[in-house]
Amino acid sequence: MDKQVSTARIQKDMESFERFTSTPGQGITRLPFTGVIRDCVNHLTNLMKEAGLDVREDAAGNVYGRTKGSAKNAPALVIGSHFDSVRFGGNFDGLCGIIVGIEIVRMLRDAGITLKNPIEIMGTHDEEGMRYGTGFFGVKAMMGEIDVDYLRRYKDSDGISIYESMVSYGLDPERIKAAKRDYKNEIAAFLEIHIEQGPVLESTNTKLGLVNCIVGMQRFLITVTGRPDHAGTTPMDMRVDAMECASKVISQVSGWAKEAGGKGTVATVGFAQVTPNAMNIIPQEVVFSLDVRSKDRNCIEKIVGNVRAELERVCSEKGATFAIDEKLNVAPAYLDENLLKMFRESCGKLGFSQMQMPSGAGHDSLQTAPEIPTVMLFVPSKGGRSHCAVEWTEYSDLANAASVVYDTLVSNFK
Amino acid sequence: MDKQVSTARIQKDMESFERFTSTPGQGITRLPFTGVIRDCVNHLTNLMKEAGLDVREDAAGNVYGRTKGSAKNAPALVIGSHFDSVRFGGNFDGLCGIIVGIEIVRMLRDAGITLKNPIEIMGTHDEEGMRYGTGFFGVKAMMGEIDVDYLRRYKDSDGISIYESMVSYGLDPERIKAAKRDYKNEIAAFLEIHIEQGPVLESTNTKLGLVNCIVGMQRFLITVTGRPDHAGTTPMDMRVDAMECASKVISQVSGWAKEAGGKGTVATVGFAQVTPNAMNIIPQEVVFSLDVRSKDRNCIEKIVGNVRAELERVCSEKGATFAIDEKLNVAPAYLDENLLKMFRESCGKLGFSQMQMPSGAGHDSLQTAPEIPTVMLFVPSKGGRSHCAVEWTEYSDLANAASVVYDTLVSNFK
Repeated sequence: MDKQVSTARIQKDMESFERFTSTPGQGITRLPFTGVIRDCVNHLTNLMKEAGLDVREDAAGNVYGRTKGSAKNAPALVIGSHFDSVRFGGNFDGLCGIIVGIEIVRMLRDAGITLKNPIEIMGTHDEEGMRYGTGFFGVKAMMGEIDVDYLRRYKDSDGISIYESMVSYGLDPERIKAAKRDYKNEIAAFLEIHIEQGPVLESTNTKLGLVNCIVGMQRFLITVTGRPDHAGTTPMDMRVDAMECASKVISQVSGWAKEAGGKGTVATVGFAQVTPNAMNIIPQEVVFSLDVRSKDRNCIEKIVGNVRAELERVCSEKGATFAIDEKLNVAPAYLDENLLKMFRESCGKLGFSQMQMPSGAGHDSLQTAPEIPTVMLFVPSKGGRSHCAVEWTEYSDLANAASVVYDTLVSNFK
Repeated sequence: MDKQVSTARIQKDMESFERFTSTPGQGITRLPFTGVIRDCVNHLTNLMKEAGLDVREDAAGNVYGRTKGSAKNAPALVIGSHFDSVRFGGNFDGLCGIIVGIEIVRMLRDAGITLKNPIEIMGTHDEEGMRYGTGFFGVKAMMGEIDVDYLRRYKDSDGISIYESMVSYGLDPERIKAAKRDYKNEIAAFLEIHIEQGPVLESTNTKLGLVNCIVGMQRFLITVTGRPDHAGTTPMDMRVDAMECASKVISQVSGWAKEAGGKGTVATVGFAQVTPNAMNIIPQEVVFSLDVRSKDRNCIEKIVGNVRAELERVCSEKGATFAIDEKLNVAPAYLDENLLKMFRESCGKLGFSQMQMPSGAGHDSLQTAPEIPTVMLFVPSKGGRSHCAVEWTEYSDLANAASVVYDTLVSNFK
């Protein structure tokens, strides 16, 4: 395979995108439907064309680059990932899956191979959901799940809706449904190459992760309400301290996650906001997030149940109240066994160490997996770091991924 | 006494100050060296003059209204409190101590009584420290503790120093030392009437609180530093979660305060700030405040020691680090036994229920007590509420305080 994959080509392509950021010097910020994304998409279109692909932009701002297949009317093999980023993120999350896809197309072209199925390299728009507090926009639109109401409903922090942003980006939001595909007939498989964004592959010295499941996720905002009194003049036994109540629960969350056990079961309190948040006033209100993920829905329910029971116990003891607002509830998605087997065989053939693993992060594949045979391949993240400027993956590891997917395609779809 | 004190006069005077706020409709905001304070001081000056007082403003912006005493060169009895407020506070905190003082002067005038000692009603400037993050400014200046360096060092959130503010307020900051008084010779006693700002008097149905001690206070900002990783992809046993570490400590603070025991021992975590504070990122940093107060310095040290030990235990277990930054360290101040005895006797004579109690909040008296015989009288706060728009004290309770202080003065200083 070494003759075919080009680490240098991958590196050159990846680096050529580093300039597309609205926060130069502070990592990559490519928010959807902005000028930076327009420049990024123009560049991506050129790269795809150079690789011999037929390129089109759909009504949701996704970019497709397509090869022809040898069999008549065969459904496409889609290699997809997103080109948007979080704020102050890295250049690998999302983008590398597109670049590796283009490299695979170039490898096929260099080898003079035409698969039975067409290949489509799909750059998806707004997977991260960073600007409008949403997520998986492009793939959802492709699956017909986005309507004009949705575009008007979600707004960025300046009050600009997706609808308005699309207009200034040069798309007609009224045509959003044109992005929907007859995916049951048009798409044979969805393949996503992505950085792990966690430390497991690196720390176990494993070259590739075969993602067999994307964990289910429940996310809540929990508000504990007490009474704001003077921190000096209110005796301990006359307080209703929202911080005391909240911290008694928060401090146990990681223990409950460990108890629930099982790989991929995690629980995190990443956000907290205190009101009035003054050193000399007993907190009236603490709002905190709870993010629980697991391959096993029962593990999630168990942790959430513990949190609820302890909130009830602590708040009733102290005279505080609480409210739990569910923000997200996604079932685990299991990836395609058949495609996983192909990847595993290719890894074996090429001598790459691999492990099956769950993905703890959501991905476009989470959306496609229930409807389209879907598989994900993880490459190692240095130090497990992601969503930050120091995010890094070795270009040679991206080349390994290209080699495995190339071998899988050539071995099974020629 | 009912013939002498006028609840109606007190009410009218108190209400006449409600218009001096920079946040109308959202409570009282009277920040030092602002136009609102200038208007407030002009009005106060007029009130004092109407009560027959000789009025002057000192070099620090304090306002004095003085009567003559019958004995030659007798030191003054100062009845003092502050006219500034917190942001979005109430009309009682501070101001009522000045108005009650003016009422006492009117009662003496109405009764045709001249005390041996002159009386000075002192309106102090910037006790709250809200604008520059300081406190007790006017009284400190009176005691000679403020110099020009201090005026230049402390700035508000817009970067305006006390020095600059004083100039635009119409004072010459270079003359700050002229506010210093020869208090050992000029002042016989400092009497402060203040709202309790806590629930104890109301909940025990006690008319007046004789403050025998202002608690000592230590205040810290504690920073716990972990590592910001992806909340979905980082296994529980590979995390360094600053929130987990901080919450394990915070959740125990109130328990340690109760353990340390003793009236007036309280500990509060009123402030917390999480970085990056995103639902899907493990917290890198949690900064939280610790405010510990007690009459007994050993109780404070014990609680702070527990916090430090638990931070060490938890952080070393998880691989996190912490730093403790001391922001305030004030020793307890004991008030004058002799003056307390006079107040107690007057309460008994007038039939007002009273209790001795510590003040959990800092006051101007905290500054004067080590140097000048000082006493404080607390009036009940409705629901214990203060530093908020619903702060309330019955005007009849202020009249009770006026009657007690009047009786004390007439009984002991005529």
